[in-house]
This record gives sequence, structure tokens and C-alpha cells, in this order.
Amino acid sequence: MSEAFTPRDPDFENRARNSFGNQPAMARLFGARMTRITPGRTEVALAVQPDFLQQQGVVHGGLIGALLDSAAGYAALSLMPAGTEVVTVEYKINFLAPAFGEHLVARGWVLRPGRTLYACAGEAFAVRNGEETPVAYLTATMMAVPDRKLAQAQEQPGGGTT
Amino acid sequence: MSEAFTPRDPDFENRARNSFGNQPAMARLFGARMTRITPGRTEVALAVQPDFLQQQGVVHGGLIGALLDSAAGYAALSLMPAGTEVVTVEYKINFLAPAFGEHLVARGWVLRPGRTLYACAGEAFAVRNGEETPVAYLTATMMAVPDRKLAQAQEQPGGGTT
Amino acid sequence: MSEAFTPRDPDFENRARNSFGNQPAMARLFGARMTRITPGRTEVALAVQPDFLQQQGVVHGGLIGALLDSAAGYAALSLMPAGTEVVTVEYKINFLAPAFGEHLVARGWVLRPGRTLYACAGEAFAVRNGEETPVAYLTATMMAVPDRKLAQAQEQPGGGTT
Amino acid sequence: MSEAFTPRDPDFENRARNSFGNQPAMARLFGARMTRITPGRTEVALAVQPDFLQQQGVVHGGLIGALLDSAAGYAALSLMPAGTEVVTVEYKINFLAPAFGEHLVARGWVLRPGRTLYACAGEAFAVRNGEETPVAYLTATMMAVPDRKLAQAQEQPGGGTT
Repeated sequence: MSEAFTPRDPDFENRARNSFGNQPAMARLFGARMTRITPGRTEVALAVQPDFLQQQGVVHGGLIGALLDSAAGYAALSLMPAGTEVVTVEYKINFLAPAFGEHLVARGWVLRPGRTLYACAGEAFAVRNGEETPVAYLTATMMAVPDRKLAQAQEQPGGGTT
Repeated sequence: MSEAFTPRDPDFENRARNSFGNQPAMARLFGARMTRITPGRTEVALAVQPDFLQQQGVVHGGLIGALLDSAAGYAALSLMPAGTEVVTVEYKINFLAPAFGEHLVARGWVLRPGRTLYACAGEAFAVRNGEETPVAYLTATMMAVPDRKLAQAQEQPGGGTT
Repeated sequence: MSEAFTPRDPDFENRARNSFGNQPAMARLFGARMTRITPGRTEVALAVQPDFLQQQGVVHGGLIGALLDSAAGYAALSLMPAGTEVVTVEYKINFLAPAFGEHLVARGWVLRPGRTLYACAGEAFAVRNGEETPVAYLTATMMAVPDRKLAQAQEQPGGGTT
Repeated sequence: MSEAFTPRDPDFENRARNSFGNQPAMARLFGARMTRITPGRTEVALAVQPDFLQQQGVVHGGLIGALLDSAAGYAALSLMPAGTEVVTVEYKINFLAPAFGEHLVARGWVLRPGRTLYACAGEAFAVRNGEETPVAYLTATMMAVPDRKLAQAQEQPGGGTT
């Protein structure tokens, strides 16, 4: 988790923030923001809204998974060369505790960057009265694909684009 | 996948449909419906809306994960005794192809029901012009907890309630 | 599970059997045999030996994972072009029941073959007095790499060669 | 990873070392040793033998998975009450690099201890000329069951006893 990575694209931050901001799902449906991005690490956050809950009053686990998927995906994208986008090959999420709180924060990081595949991890926290509680832990495989050429992604499993 | 299960609660269908319908996340945010439920199997579906996409025009993978999590969770709930609710311990999703289409359908089934833990699987499909394309495959562990006693869930990992 | 795949290498069976037979881990340590291989599907089996158990007299789960990893990996290899080998990118195993028995059988199949990545699944059974009990379920991502050029695998996450 | 846990059983170290030493699979087949155990963390190691390899000369990924499963399982056991044993509910392994080396070391830790379920993680390293290279990363769910009462484990998914 402490390894320092050198980005292949010096403009990685703008590229990642633009990509994230152009996502209707993250930017509009969830109202999520990218609160931090450094080479190989990212943080995304959202304000919990009533429609994000399930019947027992905690945040739906699937939304936590979606946010963590994004955090890990953009951690990978920060290390990918210019002209590429990121797609999710697979992710797994272990839930640690029910998510009560006003905000959700998800942090993602790269475990191992490869030529096209990136092994990643992430952790999500519920923020209640300013205090963070860990609620979920993720591992994932991300893949670099040529930008705007999702056709290429169709040649492969994957395609759960973050 | 072909095993026939006997539900412990003869009223499982009403209980599952009520639980699903009371979920703001599934019922309102995603507009998802439970289209079928039999002992140990379920199908949920939604109409794809512009806000569900990512920047390349396909459905965000995290939403597919959320829908599959729900399908598998309610497949487990259909076999749980009366007076219990379901929480997700963990799930893993492998993406098979980008999700282009007007609808998403997710089917979940129980691989092995236990005393409190249920091993489940599921598959999601994008529906385009009436044709289904497999887009994701899930395995998951679900847990039965006493209804409306999420306190108990807090004693355990899990809590990503479906 | 019922899809018919066309192998890219008509000699896939010999290639897979040779690769499997040349594995000291599978062939010698576990004494495993490849009992069946068709395009996109495979079956491997072993006789349970006292050294495969844990302290409670059931087969160690990690061995079941290793056998399932192999079954899924060779299911993928059966669809890969000539001149390639298979490495495991990731796998996940859900245990269904303790494994009591004289034999273990693991079946693997391809969910989605891609250009270099293959989404796979598998199921393991303990065989006791001739009766099969499901004991574990796997999903995995396999990757094709040029034969005998593991150097290439080092450019990527993965490398848990099956 | 830095959280300090209080063991429920002050004799956890003896109990864990005895359990590990009584495992034919770990102690005899793999020749693995438990090199360190503290509350919620453990390290296991083995000397790589020719029979552990696959056809390309690297350690078989399934063996790395088995070792990591054990490391995570005993990390969980170190926090379980007296009179219990540990079974694996599920684990997922992401491979980071091919495993070349004379030794393998696997470290496991508890992410969240629950009443009966434990969310865990782990990382494996190949040791070559004294230098460690990360080769795999694991997340897992472990479950406490009454000691020598595997019957209880049969009521649940799980049973891939570590």
C-alpha cells in the first residue's frame, strides 16, 4: 500500500477527473465526487440520500460496491498510458459492517500495475458525525483499453466499465 | 442449478416481494422489479436509463453488480425461515461483455442453503431488441438475520444488505 | 454451461494433456489425472491420500482450490490458439460442504472466451462410495500467454500458472 | 492492517500451533511451518520443492492459494474463543506475479472479527536470494465452529477447513 508509482501519463489527474465527471452513473445518479487522486491511489465520496438505502435503513451494499469499483478503477487509470480507458474485469467485495451515516468514502489503490492488467484493492467507509467506520473491502482486476474503442473491450471478458 | 428446494416459509413469495418493494435503492433509484421468484431462484429486471451509463455509453458495471447482488440475495431469502431478513456477506462479479441494451435482467439461484449461510450464484443479461446477451456472472455468500434486528448483523462482517 | 465452443487449435486435447502431465504439482504431488477434455470443458480427478487432509479428517480446502484452478485453467486452454499457455489471473472459491470421500472430481468450463482473457467457472465434488457431493464452486479469470515465454506473464498481474 | 486485537482465548498461540501442526496437508504434504502468530495476524512459510512447480518452473498457483488460505484462517483462529476451530467459507486470490524462488511466505490478517464470521486478507511472497517479491493477494471469509464438531460445519456452506 505504501509503494510509490510513477504515472505513464503526466496529465493523469485531468484525464481521470474528466472521465469520472463524464459518467452519468457516478456524477449524476450517485452524486459522487473524486475527492483525491495521486499516482495509483484515489478517493471518491458521496452524500447518502434516502434513495440509497434498503428497507432496514442502511446503504444498499450494491451501491457501496459500485463506488468501490469506481475508486479502484480510477486508481488503475491514474497509471495507464494516455489514450486509454479502464474497464473492470472482475471485482469482489467483502462487507465488514452495515453502512450507517451521512457520507460514504471509498479509497482505491493499485496492488500491481501490469502491461494491460492492474490488480487493485479498496476500502469503503461510512462517515457518521465525522467519524469513519470501515464497511467494505474490495479486490479487483482492471484492464486498459484504447480510449473510445470499446469495440476492443468486446473482444474480451470485462466491460463492466468503471 | 436444477436442484429443487423446499421453502421453510410457505409465504416466501409475499415476504420477498414486500422486502424488495420496500427498498428505496432497488425500487426507486434503479426502478427495478422482481419479475419472478420460486424457491431458491429469482429474477429481477430494470429499464436502462441515461443516468445508468458511464462515459462510453454502456451500463456502469457497479449497477450490474448491485442488481445481481439483489437477485442472489432474494434467491437466498426465498429459502430462509419466516422472521428473517438477508444480508450479503460477500459477492464477486466477473464481467463477460459490455452491457448495451434497453433492459437489464439478473437471475440468481442458491447453490447450497445452510443453517444461516447461503452460497449463491447469478448471471446478468443485457436485453437489446429483445435479445439477451450475458454480461456478468456472480457468486456470493448470503446470511439470514432476524428481521428488523440489524443490530445482530452488526456483530458480524456482512451488512451489505441486499 | 450448454454453449458449444469451437477450438482454435484442432490439436487442443493433446496439447492440454501434455501440459497437464508435465506439471509436477498436479501429476506428482497430487496424483491428479485429466479424466476428460472437450472444447471449453474439462474434468480432473484425484484419489484422496492421508496427507491431503486437515486435522478434522476432511480434505484441505486449499487442495480443492488448486484442483478447481487446474480444471478451469485447462478448460480455457482448450480454446486457446496453438503456441499459447494458460496463467491464472484470479480465482474465487466458495465452499459448499466438507469434503469426505475417496476421490475428488473437479469440473471446469468456460463462461466467456475472449481474445486473451477467459472467464471460467467450476465445481468440485467429493466421491464417497461412488456418490458425488458438491463441495466447492469456483469462478476465475484465465489468460493466454505465448508458450514458454513466461517473461511475458511477468509484465502482467497473474502468473499463478495452472 | 494496523488495528490491535484482543484475543478471546489467552492460550491462542498454543491452540493455533497445535491445530496447524496436526494438519497433514500443511505439515507433511507442503512441509509448511507457522513462523509467527500474534492476535489477528499470522505468517506461514514453506521451502519450495520440485513437486510444487508447474511446467514452466514456477510454483503452482493453487499451492500459493492453499498457503494463503491457511495464513488467513489461522489469523482468524487466533481471535476465536477457546473450544472452536476455523473453517473457510470462501476465499479469492489475485495473482500479482509468477512465483520464482526458494521459499514462499504467506501473511494473513483479520480485517473484521465478528461473532462467528471473520473477514480476512493476506499476501504471499516468493523469496529468492533473500529478497521478497509479492506474488498473490487474498481476501477471505472464515467461520468459527465448535472444535471437533465438524457436524455443525455440515449444516452450513463452508467446510474448506484451513
